[in-house]
Amino acid sequence: MSEHKSTTIEQRLSALGIVLPRPAAPVANYVGAVLTGSMLVVSGQLCFDATGKLDPAHIGKLGASSSLEDGKAAARLCVINVLAQVKAVVGSLDRVSRCVRLGGFINCQPDFASLPQVMNGASDLMVEIYGDAGRHARSTIGVAQLPLNALVEVEGLFEIH
Amino acid sequence: MSEHKSTTIEQRLSALGIVLPRPAAPVANYVGAVLTGSMLVVSGQLCFDATGKLDPAHIGKLGASSSLEDGKAAARLCVINVLAQVKAVVGSLDRVSRCVRLGGFINCQPDFASLPQVMNGASDLMVEIYGDAGRHARSTIGVAQLPLNALVEVEGLFEIH
Amino acid sequence: MSEHKSTTIEQRLSALGIVLPRPAAPVANYVGAVLTGSMLVVSGQLCFDATGKLDPAHIGKLGASSSLEDGKAAARLCVINVLAQVKAVVGSLDRVSRCVRLGGFINCQPDFASLPQVMNGASDLMVEIYGDAGRHARSTIGVAQLPLNALVEVEGLFEIH
Repeated sequence: MSEHKSTTIEQRLSALGIVLPRPAAPVANYVGAVLTGSMLVVSGQLCFDATGKLDPAHIGKLGASSSLEDGKAAARLCVINVLAQVKAVVGSLDRVSRCVRLGGFINCQPDFASLPQVMNGASDLMVEIYGDAGRHARSTIGVAQLPLNALVEVEGLFEIH
Repeated sequence: MSEHKSTTIEQRLSALGIVLPRPAAPVANYVGAVLTGSMLVVSGQLCFDATGKLDPAHIGKLGASSSLEDGKAAARLCVINVLAQVKAVVGSLDRVSRCVRLGGFINCQPDFASLPQVMNGASDLMVEIYGDAGRHARSTIGVAQLPLNALVEVEGLFEIH
Repeated sequence: MSEHKSTTIEQRLSALGIVLPRPAAPVANYVGAVLTGSMLVVSGQLCFDATGKLDPAHIGKLGASSSLEDGKAAARLCVINVLAQVKAVVGSLDRVSRCVRLGGFINCQPDFASLPQVMNGASDLMVEIYGDAGRHARSTIGVAQLPLNALVEVEGLFEIH
């Protein structure tokens, strides 16, 4: 994807029609992301939409009221919120030299095993945006519950230059 | 919080009335924390009290028998145990230049969504102790179960100088 | 364990009768492991056997149909798959100077608390293979579900030289 060389990541986001939301303000004594050396650790982000709200389809558990497509869309939103935190802390999305890891937490019924398909909503967007530099290590698990009963939460680890 | 400059972290703990317990000895082939470069990775710590026991109020699931206050107190205890591991491995709590990340695992019923409030018990104490250097990235999830049926487990990542 | 000095890790694996499987190919836009600086981050690995299949005893939840021994064996398999990813990315298992962390996710019933015993299957093998350099920080949690309804998933963090 040689086009990544000549366009900025922000231009790439625009081309994809993605507007970064205002990064969700932590409501407590923690922060959205911490830079240590060349490593940026991003807090788990929920699937808030561009207005900072949880769409009703992105609340609850996979395997109950929400569909696989809802899950993928929610995971994609989490990544957008992760990137909003990246930008807030390091200033420009072009400072990311690699997405090192994404951790995906899926709020699900105990019998819902299509977790990778849900998490692909996050991974696919990361690669759409960053190309090969977006190919990350990943862990995906199904959890009993998430903050605000959100459908998906994604945390990130980035290499910054 | 300029007072942090002139007092040691141990003095700060004393002022808060906190006595670090003997770090919980791993009962298997793992260790409490590993230092790699300037990064200290601390194993998930349970909510043991100062005598190394789990208070009955800190066993079980949030949303069942335990209250939100129990959960916050348990998360606070986890941080105390995390710091005991930090001290055991790097010698002095003053070597921490930043708490980079806390991961909070809350043992809960599938319908208990007040997870951030529980985890605030951990985050608040970290900032009470370290001031701005204690402001961390954080991921909070609700899990199906924890070792020993403990109410909360917290893992940590620290930058050491 | 001075023998570790004179034998390679691959020789050690052979002596233990362990054959590394072909590393599981991620079925999406992520990779098995990412090297950033001297840190190798390995994706969560499921308990696939040497033929890349999930044994029926390693599917489902601890506390339901699977025994503690099944769980330990599954956790051990996860580590073998983690090491297959390490080798695939850095070329030789001898480049590992330390296993820094293992994260263990156990698919379990909400009342199954013997999680550390299950995860010992992973930790014990790591130390059998790497000796003291295999002693890692560890977090163990019980989760609502895992990809493919696998019994155990383990992620890893390694220091590479």
